[in-house]
Parts: sequence; structure tokens; C-alpha cells
Amino acid sequence: MTRTSPFRASAPITQDWRHFDFRVDDGVGTVTFTRPEKYNPLTFDSYADLRDLLHELPYRDDVRVLVIRGEGKAFCAGGDVNEIIGELIRMDAKDLMAFTKMTGDVIRAMRECPIPIISGIQGIAAGAGSVIALASDFRVVAESGKFAFLFTKVGLSGGDMGAAYLLPRVVGAGRATELLMLGDTINSTTAERYGLVSKLVPTPDLDDEVAALARRLADGPTLAYQQTKTLITRELDMPIGSAMELDAMTQALLMTTHDHSEFHASFNAKRPPQWAGR
Amino acid sequence: MTRTSPFRASAPITQDWRHFDFRVDDGVGTVTFTRPEKYNPLTFDSYADLRDLLHELPYRDDVRVLVIRGEGKAFCAGGDVNEIIGELIRMDAKDLMAFTKMTGDVIRAMRECPIPIISGIQGIAAGAGSVIALASDFRVVAESGKFAFLFTKVGLSGGDMGAAYLLPRVVGAGRATELLMLGDTINSTTAERYGLVSKLVPTPDLDDEVAALARRLADGPTLAYQQTKTLITRELDMPIGSAMELDAMTQALLMTTHDHSEFHASFNAKRPPQWAGR
Amino acid sequence: MTRTSPFRASAPITQDWRHFDFRVDDGVGTVTFTRPEKYNPLTFDSYADLRDLLHELPYRDDVRVLVIRGEGKAFCAGGDVNEIIGELIRMDAKDLMAFTKMTGDVIRAMRECPIPIISGIQGIAAGAGSVIALASDFRVVAESGKFAFLFTKVGLSGGDMGAAYLLPRVVGAGRATELLMLGDTINSTTAERYGLVSKLVPTPDLDDEVAALARRLADGPTLAYQQTKTLITRELDMPIGSAMELDAMTQALLMTTHDHSEFHASFNAKRPPQWAGR
Repeated sequence: MTRTSPFRASAPITQDWRHFDFRVDDGVGTVTFTRPEKYNPLTFDSYADLRDLLHELPYRDDVRVLVIRGEGKAFCAGGDVNEIIGELIRMDAKDLMAFTKMTGDVIRAMRECPIPIISGIQGIAAGAGSVIALASDFRVVAESGKFAFLFTKVGLSGGDMGAAYLLPRVVGAGRATELLMLGDTINSTTAERYGLVSKLVPTPDLDDEVAALARRLADGPTLAYQQTKTLITRELDMPIGSAMELDAMTQALLMTTHDHSEFHASFNAKRPPQWAGR
Repeated sequence: MTRTSPFRASAPITQDWRHFDFRVDDGVGTVTFTRPEKYNPLTFDSYADLRDLLHELPYRDDVRVLVIRGEGKAFCAGGDVNEIIGELIRMDAKDLMAFTKMTGDVIRAMRECPIPIISGIQGIAAGAGSVIALASDFRVVAESGKFAFLFTKVGLSGGDMGAAYLLPRVVGAGRATELLMLGDTINSTTAERYGLVSKLVPTPDLDDEVAALARRLADGPTLAYQQTKTLITRELDMPIGSAMELDAMTQALLMTTHDHSEFHASFNAKRPPQWAGR
Repeated sequence: MTRTSPFRASAPITQDWRHFDFRVDDGVGTVTFTRPEKYNPLTFDSYADLRDLLHELPYRDDVRVLVIRGEGKAFCAGGDVNEIIGELIRMDAKDLMAFTKMTGDVIRAMRECPIPIISGIQGIAAGAGSVIALASDFRVVAESGKFAFLFTKVGLSGGDMGAAYLLPRVVGAGRATELLMLGDTINSTTAERYGLVSKLVPTPDLDDEVAALARRLADGPTLAYQQTKTLITRELDMPIGSAMELDAMTQALLMTTHDHSEFHASFNAKRPPQWAGR
């Protein structure tokens, strides 16, 4: 049984996520897409489960960092052509809107969930897979990693699931236009040059590098990390004066925490800090 | 006679653009600045014609991509010192405001026109020429290409025609400050490193590279391209939640289009899609 | 006695800044942090003095560019662990808020002060020192320069003093997340690659390079430079249509200035312009 926040009442915490593998190990939650034979495509059900998991995570006390990865040689090829597109072209407006809102809700939940998210990317991250990578806080990318915001190639808008909002803020509006309008695949070197890669690593080292970063984030000052993520997300949408006020209030509050005092004590005692996340 | 949109009534479509060369070839419209002996300077009349052409283009059905280029060895040297500055220093507030609003209207029309715009840049893109390049969706740049946001060198603000809005969103606020405040010329290699170049090409290949990209955009899924451009433009000014809603509605609508179904059919038939732009 | 603006009445201009060295030489004001033995840490008093100096500068007519630098081998190591953090952990909410608002006010004043600011950075720019560097218009960085947005390492939010607002707009949201969440130190080469460096220079040349840039800005068209800075700052928070209006009004006004006419006259006389800053 998962420990939960005091601010969750009747709603149960889902124990069984059936459309991806989910496990928790010492503060690190890991979502693994598990259809390697089709490059880990998303389905209606896996979108729904991702959205709901991300909405629950902040109320569980056992996950301090989330890793998203794919089984086999790919990260995630996005929506399957027949399982998803084949269904969509028969839907009416009501269902189409419910679908596109759900997919957007996944990305919004990734950004609004205060827990840091690491994508471990090898092979292809395409379509929705590329946007999930984009919405992560950290993209640890194997040399085999590739990104394809391929929406226009299927006759759709490149601005899928917030990509037209997020990508210009990560790589600049010029390169974002190139990637979203043309939909071409870029390799890990180009992605790194564009600022889309947090760490570029040899392909065989990917899991170890992801695990090391996840360990570091899980063992660090949780509240400080979470507020840093929240401020980055929110201040993209705030004018400078309001952002300064939000920073000032946040920092004043964090200055009252155990972790801040602990830093000071450990510094003077010349020992490593013992972070408590409060 | 040009075919027009059903949403244009009494207003005629201009047949004769007298202050640049304009031609249309199989979906590709091309504006060529034609005063190579002075590096293709802009005049009051060519600003006005650009603004009006960009306002008309969405109502013509024959242009699916716009190319902007300069005759000879330069792209566009901006406003001519004597033809433009010489006049401005004698104007009163009313005319000055009308002039600066017109030049801003050119750039705003470039961003608000849903048709993708490619600038083919060789030699100098200076002053207004550099902002026209900046406001394009794609900058195909010859090795000979150079950018000079030189406004402070003539005693004016570097934020001319929206440059202080656009450039930080393309190259980041640090490099934008350097370029706009100092007004120095950067070469094509530096521009590429800064993210100001969509594709850097050998100078003799410029026209072919521009033509190939224009062909690709003219032959692709028009509606998908246009909405991608529109979302990138608009979502620079939107908070994340609103951007997600706009994406969801746009994508739901595009999922009902011929082009999206055609992708699915062509994929399963293992043939290239035949895009209809609707 | 300093000459002042006509728009300052009873409030005196501070003659003696006691918590850093401040001097003015031919239009160039220089703030030097002068505790090299501790890598020039900030104190409550030096924050207050910086804020007040920045609020006064626009009303003095003798400073057209501001340089910020550190004595010895470092730029600024931020708040001292015992002089600042040791005090903060004993403060109540009222004083904590007053402190974090003051530090934010320093950065906001740097951005809102129309005078261009150059940071000359050698050795470490850490914590508040890294944000002061970030908020400068120009960062001239010695090869020995290093940046550390180390706030999470002391258990605080990476969004200190506006860093979560500013850094994503300078280096993109991906790299900003890496720098602000992890708090690791980056060297001058990485900073340059990320777009955080205006000019990277050999360490022994730092003072000369800063002096040359300061000289150029002090001798140039002051009003044009100041408005360029103001527009870049403000248009980060404005939608495109409003930014275009602000540009149009600003430029129309600058077209009536002596400096703009002077450019035209000097161009035709084939002599260098004599800028008057009005």
C-alpha cells in the first residue's frame, strides 16, 4: 500500500497500471512502454493511464522522481497508425475533441506535476513520443536517439499536444518552425546542438546514466527541486514583475525549511547534508 | 485572373505589383527585390506593396508558399539612406507614425499570413532586410549571407519592426541584445550557430535549395502547414493551458480532413499520399 | 557634484556607496565588489546599495553605461554562507520576505534601468552572482569564468531573484532546467555554447575587453541604446501586436532626434557621427 498525502480523501490510488509497466524503487518511479516490437506505440488506454498516473503522483509520498523509458531499442513511436489513426478518422467531433484534449492533458500534467521527470531516450521518439520527451524536465539521450515531430507527415498540425508552445521555448522559434513544419527526423547530435538534450550518452550507458540522475534527484532536496520545476513552468507565462514576486515568496518560504537549515549546519560541520524534503 | 477565396467580396485582387517583381509558378509565389545596384533597398512604395500583397495572399488560391529573395548578390539592404532617412528627418509626428506603423504592419502580416514564407538570403540582409528575414518561417542562407540589425548605427532603436519581440524568441535574449544593441554584422556561420538559419548552403546552390524547399511546401498538406505556422505564431503569446486548448481544437478539426484520411489510406496501400490541402 | 535629471526633486543623489567600490570615468560607471579574499560575496548592505544605485542611475547624467566586476580572481560568489544564510535561518516571515523582495528588486532594477549593463566575469559567478551576471545586458567572460546557479545545493529554489524567468529566455527552457535544478557549475566554454556569453576572451584581456565595450556604448547614441534595452526587456512580456505598436511609437519618436539627423548628415558628409544622446 502506497503512503499518500494528507490532501487526498475518498479517491483511491490506482494499484494496477495495465497499459505500461510502472514500478517504484526507493523514490524513483519508472514508466516503461512495453511493446518493443512496434517501437512502443501509445494507445487510447496508455494515454489515459499516463494522464491519471501523473495526476496521482503528487499525492503519493513514495515517488520523488519519475523516469519514462521504452523497452527494446526505441523510446516511443507515438500513436500507432492503425490502432489510433484508423479509429480517429471514423470519429465525430465530440470524440475527436475528447481524444485531443486527453493527449494535451498528458503533457500538461507532465509540466504541472511538481515531480521532476526524466526521459531516457534511445532510438526513435516520434509523434506523441517526441512531445513526451519534450515535456520532460531532463532528456538523457543515447547516441542512437532520434526525434521526429512528424505530425504534418500524417496531414496534421505540428502543434500537437502543446509542441508549438513548448518547442520554441526550448530550441527557439526558428528551429522549432523547421522541426514542426517539416516533421523531419533529427539525430541525437543535432538535437544536442539545438538544446533538446540534457545529457548525450553512449547508447549502452543509457540506463545507467538515467539511473544515476534519478538517484541524485531522488536523494536531493525534494521541495527545492519541485519548486524549481514549478517556477520554470509558470514563469514561462508570467511577466517579469510577477515572476519576481513569485520567486520572492517561494524563496522566503523555503528559507524556513529543514533542508535549508540542514545545509547551513552541514556546511559548518563539514559533512554532507541529510535532505528531508521538508 | 487569379482564383480567389469565397471570403473575399468587392475588393479586387491586385494584378500589378510595381515595386518588386512578383510571380507565381505552380503554387509558389516569389517576391524579388530588383534594385541590385543598391543592394535591393526598400522604399515607401515597396513597404506598402509588401503589406498589401501579404494581406491579399490568403485570399488567393494559387499561392501555397511565398519566397522572398533579392536580385544580384544581396538580399536586401533595408531602407535607403537618402530615399527613406532623408525624407523621415523632415516629417512630422503624424507621418512618422504612419511610416513606422506601416513597416511594423509588413512584419505582422508576414507572421499572421498563414502561408509559409521562405527567405533566400545571400549577401547582406540589413536593417529592415534583416527583420524581413527574421520574420520568415524559413531562412535558407548562402555562405555569403550576412545579417546586420544596424538600427542603432543610424541613431534609432534596435527594436525596429518587431525585432525586439522576434529576435529574443529565435536566438535567446542574450544574443538578441548583442545583435540589436550593437548593430554589428554577423556572417552566415555565426547566424547558423545562433539558430537564425534554417539551412546553410553553398552560395551557388541557393536558388536550387530555396526552390526545393518551396516545392516541398507547395506540394505538401497545405492546411497542416498553415495551422502549424499559425500555432507557432500565436502560442508565443499564450499561456500553456490556453495553448493546449488551441492545439486540441485545431488537431480535432484537422483529424476530419481529407488529408488526414488520405495519409491513412496511402499508408496502408503503401503509396505516397496525394495531398489536397483540405 | 553629479549633474542630475530635471525629473528628480528633493531626493538627494547618494555620494558615498560604502558596500562596493563605485566610480565614474567619462560616462562609464563601475561597480567593483571588493572582498576578493572571499570571492566577493554579497551582504545585506551590498544588495541594498546595488538596488539604490540602480534606482538613482537614470537620474544622473554622468553615467551612460554601467560595468559590474569583481576584484581579484572571481566575479561574485553570491551570498556568504554565514553572513547571509546564517542570519536568514533565524528570521521570521516578515524579514525573510523583505530580504527576498530586496534581492529580486536588485535584478528587476538591472532590467528596468535603461542604462546598458556589462558584467566582466572571471572565475566564479555563483548564486546571486550568477543571477547578476544573467540580468546584465552583456556578459564579457574570461576563459576562467564559471557559472553556478547553485540554489538547490543549499536547499532553496533554483528560481532565485528571477532566474527561473530570465534563464529560459536566454538559454532555452531545457538547458535552464538543467542549470537551475541541478545547480552544477559550468565553465566558460559551455556557457558560450548555451548563449550565456556575449564575448569570450582570454583571461588576461578581460579588463581591456570590458573597457572597450563600455567605451563604445558610452560614446554611442545613448537614447537608441537605452530604448533598445527597454524594448527587449518589455517585449519579452508583450504579445506581438502590442510589441509592434511600442516599436512603431518608439521609432517614430527617435526619428525626430538630433542623433538620427546627425547620422544622415554625417553619412552624406562622409564623416563619423557626433552622437549627442538626444
